[in-house]
Amino acid sequence: MVITDNLLSSLLQTRAHSEEICSPLQTEDYVVQPIVDVSPPKWHLGHTTWFFEEFILSKYKTGYTRFHSDFAFVFNSYYESIGKRVIRTNRGNLSRPTVNEVYEYRHHVTSHLKSLLEENENQQIKDLVEIGIHHEKQHQELLLTDIKYILGNNPLLPKYNDTFIENPKMESSTEYHTIDEGVYEIGYKGKDFCYDNELGVHKVFLQKYAIADKLVTNKEYLEFINDNGYEDSLLWHAEAWDWIKKNNIKTPLYWHEIDKEYHQYTLGGLKILNPDAPVTHISYYEAFAFAQWKGERLPTEFEWEAAQQYFNYGVRWEWTESAYLPYPNYAKAPGALGEYNGKFMVNQKVLRGGSVATPNNHTRYTYRNFFHPQLRWQFNGLRLVKNK
Amino acid sequence: MVITDNLLSSLLQTRAHSEEICSPLQTEDYVVQPIVDVSPPKWHLGHTTWFFEEFILSKYKTGYTRFHSDFAFVFNSYYESIGKRVIRTNRGNLSRPTVNEVYEYRHHVTSHLKSLLEENENQQIKDLVEIGIHHEKQHQELLLTDIKYILGNNPLLPKYNDTFIENPKMESSTEYHTIDEGVYEIGYKGKDFCYDNELGVHKVFLQKYAIADKLVTNKEYLEFINDNGYEDSLLWHAEAWDWIKKNNIKTPLYWHEIDKEYHQYTLGGLKILNPDAPVTHISYYEAFAFAQWKGERLPTEFEWEAAQQYFNYGVRWEWTESAYLPYPNYAKAPGALGEYNGKFMVNQKVLRGGSVATPNNHTRYTYRNFFHPQLRWQFNGLRLVKNK
Amino acid sequence: MVITDNLLSSLLQTRAHSEEICSPLQTEDYVVQPIVDVSPPKWHLGHTTWFFEEFILSKYKTGYTRFHSDFAFVFNSYYESIGKRVIRTNRGNLSRPTVNEVYEYRHHVTSHLKSLLEENENQQIKDLVEIGIHHEKQHQELLLTDIKYILGNNPLLPKYNDTFIENPKMESSTEYHTIDEGVYEIGYKGKDFCYDNELGVHKVFLQKYAIADKLVTNKEYLEFINDNGYEDSLLWHAEAWDWIKKNNIKTPLYWHEIDKEYHQYTLGGLKILNPDAPVTHISYYEAFAFAQWKGERLPTEFEWEAAQQYFNYGVRWEWTESAYLPYPNYAKAPGALGEYNGKFMVNQKVLRGGSVATPNNHTRYTYRNFFHPQLRWQFNGLRLVKNK
Amino acid sequence: MVITDNLLSSLLQTRAHSEEICSPLQTEDYVVQPIVDVSPPKWHLGHTTWFFEEFILSKYKTGYTRFHSDFAFVFNSYYESIGKRVIRTNRGNLSRPTVNEVYEYRHHVTSHLKSLLEENENQQIKDLVEIGIHHEKQHQELLLTDIKYILGNNPLLPKYNDTFIENPKMESSTEYHTIDEGVYEIGYKGKDFCYDNELGVHKVFLQKYAIADKLVTNKEYLEFINDNGYEDSLLWHAEAWDWIKKNNIKTPLYWHEIDKEYHQYTLGGLKILNPDAPVTHISYYEAFAFAQWKGERLPTEFEWEAAQQYFNYGVRWEWTESAYLPYPNYAKAPGALGEYNGKFMVNQKVLRGGSVATPNNHTRYTYRNFFHPQLRWQFNGLRLVKNK
Repeated sequence: MVITDNLLSSLLQTRAHSEEICSPLQTEDYVVQPIVDVSPPKWHLGHTTWFFEEFILSKYKTGYTRFHSDFAFVFNSYYESIGKRVIRTNRGNLSRPTVNEVYEYRHHVTSHLKSLLEENENQQIKDLVEIGIHHEKQHQELLLTDIKYILGNNPLLPKYNDTFIENPKMESSTEYHTIDEGVYEIGYKGKDFCYDNELGVHKVFLQKYAIADKLVTNKEYLEFINDNGYEDSLLWHAEAWDWIKKNNIKTPLYWHEIDKEYHQYTLGGLKILNPDAPVTHISYYEAFAFAQWKGERLPTEFEWEAAQQYFNYGVRWEWTESAYLPYPNYAKAPGALGEYNGKFMVNQKVLRGGSVATPNNHTRYTYRNFFHPQLRWQFNGLRLVKNK
Repeated sequence: MVITDNLLSSLLQTRAHSEEICSPLQTEDYVVQPIVDVSPPKWHLGHTTWFFEEFILSKYKTGYTRFHSDFAFVFNSYYESIGKRVIRTNRGNLSRPTVNEVYEYRHHVTSHLKSLLEENENQQIKDLVEIGIHHEKQHQELLLTDIKYILGNNPLLPKYNDTFIENPKMESSTEYHTIDEGVYEIGYKGKDFCYDNELGVHKVFLQKYAIADKLVTNKEYLEFINDNGYEDSLLWHAEAWDWIKKNNIKTPLYWHEIDKEYHQYTLGGLKILNPDAPVTHISYYEAFAFAQWKGERLPTEFEWEAAQQYFNYGVRWEWTESAYLPYPNYAKAPGALGEYNGKFMVNQKVLRGGSVATPNNHTRYTYRNFFHPQLRWQFNGLRLVKNK
Repeated sequence: MVITDNLLSSLLQTRAHSEEICSPLQTEDYVVQPIVDVSPPKWHLGHTTWFFEEFILSKYKTGYTRFHSDFAFVFNSYYESIGKRVIRTNRGNLSRPTVNEVYEYRHHVTSHLKSLLEENENQQIKDLVEIGIHHEKQHQELLLTDIKYILGNNPLLPKYNDTFIENPKMESSTEYHTIDEGVYEIGYKGKDFCYDNELGVHKVFLQKYAIADKLVTNKEYLEFINDNGYEDSLLWHAEAWDWIKKNNIKTPLYWHEIDKEYHQYTLGGLKILNPDAPVTHISYYEAFAFAQWKGERLPTEFEWEAAQQYFNYGVRWEWTESAYLPYPNYAKAPGALGEYNGKFMVNQKVLRGGSVATPNNHTRYTYRNFFHPQLRWQFNGLRLVKNK
Repeated sequence: MVITDNLLSSLLQTRAHSEEICSPLQTEDYVVQPIVDVSPPKWHLGHTTWFFEEFILSKYKTGYTRFHSDFAFVFNSYYESIGKRVIRTNRGNLSRPTVNEVYEYRHHVTSHLKSLLEENENQQIKDLVEIGIHHEKQHQELLLTDIKYILGNNPLLPKYNDTFIENPKMESSTEYHTIDEGVYEIGYKGKDFCYDNELGVHKVFLQKYAIADKLVTNKEYLEFINDNGYEDSLLWHAEAWDWIKKNNIKTPLYWHEIDKEYHQYTLGGLKILNPDAPVTHISYYEAFAFAQWKGERLPTEFEWEAAQQYFNYGVRWEWTESAYLPYPNYAKAPGALGEYNGKFMVNQKVLRGGSVATPNNHTRYTYRNFFHPQLRWQFNGLRLVKNK
C-alpha cells in the first residue's frame, strides 16, 4: 500500500523526470518519427499526460475542464475503446500542438492531479495514479530509446549528452549455474504495484539447465560475425533469414564500420566499439542465431525467473525463448485499462531484466517486457543457457 | 520399426493417393496460385517428388540421373541450404513444366525408389523414405485445402467432387471434463515415426481446468457474429483488430450471405450453412475473440494433450493458445532435413488434432501442427476450456 | 464501306487466326499471368469473344442466350460502365473456365455472329463487327507478346515455335531524310476503318528536321551499354533513373549475358544476339536515353507521320516523343465503346509503325499505339531524328 | 541584362522574403513532411541556400569554406550528378540541423554572396545568381503550399496568418473569346530571365477555338459534384477513376462538409466555402472530368499562350491538356544545372498562369509550370475552352 504523501511525491518526481530526460533536446528533436516504432518525444510527453487526464481527472475531478478538446484524439495511442486513434504512422506529421503547448498541458494536468490527491483519499484514484506513474515510467524508457533512434539516424550523428552510461563496468569471466529439475513458482507475490500480466502465481515444471551469470559481450558477438554467422541460413529462423536478407542486416543496429574498425553510435555520440560491453540493439532473431551458432540456447522466461538470484540484471533487456502469452488465470482489467497488456499477447517475445534506460525502481524480476522479434531499437541483449 | 515390404507398400500407396486427390481436377486447376499461402497442385506433386530425388535417389541410388536438371530449382521450397529457391510468390507464374511432365517426373522417381528399396536393406534409406512418405502426406492435406481455395475463390464456384465429407455427424451436447492440477508428461513416447518437434518427453505442470468434449459449432459462432463480435475491439488482439478491419473480415472464410441466409463453399460446392457442423476456416484471432466473448479460453497444447482421452478429435485442426516453440532438449536434425520444423518456431501458433483433410494415420495426439495466427484456409476450428 | 461477304470472311479469318496463334501452346500456358501487364492467353480468347457477345449479340440477335451468365464478369476488361470488372491482377488466379470451355464459348459466339451477319444488312451491326475484328486483331498482337513473356520468364525457357520471324533482314546503312518546315496535315483521311483517336484531320506546323530511314540496331545499342549509358544519370529522366535503379535494369528485356556473350530470348528460344537486328523490348525511357547519348532525339508522332513515305516501318513499334493526347475535335463514341481510347489519354507515350507481331493489315501510318513509358514487353524499338 | 546593383538588391530581397514567409511559423512547423510531395520548410530554406553555395560560392569565391561539410548531403534535392541525395521521403525524419542552424547557414551564404557580387563583375556569376534567385522564388511558392498542407492536415487546423489573400475579387460573368485558326508563335522572346524550357521560339498551328476569360468557380464546381460527377466513370480517365476510388476523393482538397455546408481550409483558417472564388486544389484529373461533364475541354498550353491577352491570369495555376515536353530545339544546360527542367519532361502536365502564391514578377505568359496529374496541393484551377 502506498500512502498519499509518497504517492504524490512519486508522481511529481516522475512527471519531472520525463521532462529532465528531454532537457538536452532541441525543439526539432521532439517532433520527428523516423520509423513507425519510434514516437516523437512530444507525443510521449503528451500521451502520458493524456492518460492521467482521461482515466483520472475527467472522471474524478469535479468541474475539471480538459486542457484542449482535441488532445484526446492527438495523444491517444492504442486505446481502441476510447475513440478514433491517430493512425500511428502519422504521429511524425503533426507540428502542432507545439512543444511549449505540450509542456503547458503537462503542467496543467500535473497541478490538477496534485490538488486532486491533496483533497482526496479515494483508494481507486490512488490506484489509478499509481498505474499512471508506472505507465509514464515505461514511456521514459521509450523516450530514451526513441531519442537515440532520432539522433542516431540523423546524418550529423549529434550526441544526446555526455553523462548517460550505456555500458556499466562488467566483470569478465562467465560462469554457468545449474538449476535442478522440479516445480517452481512463477509470478508476482509481493504487495506493491505490478502489472496484470505478472499476476496469477503458478507452478511450472522445469528440466535441469545451466544459466550464464553474464550477458554476451560485443567481443563474443564479433566472433559470430567473423565466423559468417549472418551468412549461414541454418542458424536462422526462416522469417529471420528473409528479414536479414531483405534489410541487408550484417551487424547490430548502430554499428558502423569505419576504416575497418567497428564503431557504435551511443547517446554520447559515435564511439569505438567496446569489446567488453554487453552486446545490444539486436533482434530476437539475432540473439537466437547467435545461441545456435554457440551450440547453446536462450532461456525461457520461467528458467530466467527461477534462476534470477544467481546473476545480476538491469543492463540489457534479455530476449527469452518464451512467447508473450497469458499466465494461467490471467484476467485483464475491465474497460479501456484492460487494453494495457492482454491485447498484445500474440506474435511477441518476452524480455526479462531491465536495461540502462529503465527508470529506477521500475523493473523487478517478475516484470515481463515484450517486443516483436525483429525489433532492435531497445537496449536488448542476451544471456545463454545450456541443457544439462 | 517398419519392415521393407510394408514400407514399399506404404510408399506406393502414398504416391498413388496424391494423384487420386488430383484426379477430379482440370489441367488448369493445377497451375494457379491465388494467394501466397496456397501452392499450385502441380507444385505439390513436383515438390514431394523432388524431396525423394534430392535426399534419397541422388545420394543413394548408384548411377541415378536426375529427371531434369532444373527441377531442383523449380520444386524446392524452403530448403535454403540446398540452393536458390524460387521466390514463393512466383510459383503461380510457371506454366512449365506441364502437368503431364510432372506426372512423368513422379513415375520416374517412384519407379527408381521402388527398385532402390527392393535392392537395398540400408536402414538410413528406409528412415529417409519414411520421412518422405510423411512429408508427402502433409502435402496431401495441403493439396486439398489449396484446391478448395483455388476453386472456392473462382467466381464460377466449381465443385471438387460429391464425395468428400467436410462435416461428419456430431452429437450435439457438449460436456466439460475437469483435469486436476499436477505434473503431466508431454511428447511422443512410441516407437513409430514422429517428427522431431514431438520428441523429448518432458513434464509440465498444469493448473486445474475443464475442457469441452465437442468443437464449437457454426450455430454457436453465429451467435457471436450476431452479437456484433466482429465489432467489439475489446475482444480482439490489437493485431487481430487491424487485420479484420483492413481485410473487412466479418465471417469465417468461404461464408457467403445470399438473400439473408449464410451459405458456405465446400468441396462439394456451395451449400446452405449447416448449424450443427463444427465451425471451420477461422483464424486464431477469431478463435481467440470467440472464446473471449464466451468468457472462456483456448487450451494450451499441453492441456489439450493431457486431456485428449476425454474427447474425439480429427475433424478440425484445433487452435491452441500455445506458440510454436521447441520442447526442452529439442534438437534439429543436421543438414537440410533439419530445416523441416525448427526454423518455423517463431510467430506461429500450435494446432492439435487433425482434420477431415488429414490423410489416414497421419495424425496422432502428440502431433504439433502450426500456422500463422491469421491463416484461415486450413480446416481449422476450436475447442473451449474453462479455468476451475 | 465493307460489303457483307468480305466482312464475314474477315471475321471468320480473324477468329480463326487468334486460335492459330495459340496452337503451339500447352494448356498450362493459357492460364498464367506473370505480371499485371500480361494477360493469360485464355483471357484474351475469352475477352475478344465477350466483346462480340456484349456489344452485338446481346443487343441485336433476337432470342440470343448468353453462353454463360458469369462470363461478362470474368472476361470484361476496362469497361467500367458495363459492370464490376475483375481486378486486373487477379486474371492469373482463375483456373476456370477451362481452355476447352473458352473454345466452346468462342465457337458459340462465332457461329451466332455468322448467322446474324447472314440474316442481316443493318449497317450499325456491320460497323460494330468491324470494330470487333479490329479489337481482336489488337489482342492478337498482345497474345504473341504475352506468350513471349510467359515462356521467356519461365526458368526452362521453352520455345514457342520455329517459324516466327522476329528479325526480318534489314539493309545496313542508315540515311537521314530532311523535312522542311511548314504546315502538314495529320490524321486519317481514308474511308476504311480507323480508330477514333486517328480522326479529326488537322494541320500542324513542323520545324525543319531530318529523320533516319532505319531503326536503331542491337549493335548501336550495345555501344550505348558499353559506354556506360545505364550509369550516366544525366542521360535519363528523373523517373527513368529511379526505375532503372530500383529494377536493376542494365539491358533490354530478354537479354541474358552467358559466358560474356549476350543472348536474347526469342519466340524461337534462346539465341545469340543478332547485332544487325533492330533493338527491341526497350522502354521509352531507354529509347530517350539512347537518343540523348547519341546527341539526337526521338521524332514526335507528327514528324513521324509527315515523313513516313521516306522509310519502311512495321518491324518495331517506334517510341515517339509525343504524349498520347486527343487530336483537336476528338470526340469519343457515346457509351461503353467510348471507353476504347479516350480514357487512356494521360501518362502514356505514342508509338507509331507496327511490329512483327502486328497482324496483317492491322496497322497504317496514322495508327496511334500507346503504352506507359516503362513498358518493354512489346516489340518496341526506335528511330532517330536530328534537328536541322 | 541585369546590372549588379539591381541584382544584389534583388538577391537580398529574395533571401529576406523567404524568411518573411516563414515568420508566422512555430519551430515545429519547419520540420515535418506529411506527404512525399511536401518538403519541410527548413529544407526549403536550406536547399535554396545550398544551391548558391554549391553552384556559385564553392566554385567562384576564393577561399570559401563550406558552412558545414554534410549540408550538401542534407539539402541536395534531385541533382543526381552532384552526389548521393537524401531519399526524398526521409526529409521529414531529420530534426537536425535545427531551424536556428539553417538560419545561420542562410546568413553565412547570403553575406558571402553579397561580398562576391560587390567584388566581382564576372557575367557568369551574375547569370548564376539570377538563376539562384529564380530558383528561390520557385521555392517560395512551394513554401506557402507546403505550409498550407502541414497546417491544413493537422487536426487542430491552425491558421497561418490573417493577411494572405487566397481569393481575390473576381467579376462574375464569363465570356468566351474566339481565336482564329492559323500559325502562332510560341516561346519566350524577351531579353530578361526565363527558364530553358520556354526557349526556342517556334510556330504552332492552332485550329479555331474559343477560350473563357474567367476561371471556373466553386459554384460551378459544386454543380458538377451535385450532379454526381465523381460517380460517373465515363467522365474520367481510367487512371483517374482508379485514383479517386482508391483515395476516396469526392471534393477538392481542403474541403470539409460540416453540418451539410462546405467549408474550406485556407491559410487564414477554416472558412465557409466562397462560391464566387475560383475553384482550387484540384488535380488535372478533376479538371478534365469537370470539362468533360461541361461538354467543353481544357486548353492546350499553346492555345492558352496564343490567347493570353484576352484574359487576366495569376490567381490559379491553370491545368492545360498539354503534356510537359521539350520545345523544338530545346537544349538543356550542360552539367548539373541541366537537370533543372529537362529531366522532368515525362508523365507531367503543363500549368500556365501563376497563382496567389507565386512571388511578384516570377511568372509570365510563357512560363511553363508542371506537375503530375494527380497533385492537388498547389493553388491549381482551370479555364475552359470550346471547339468552334
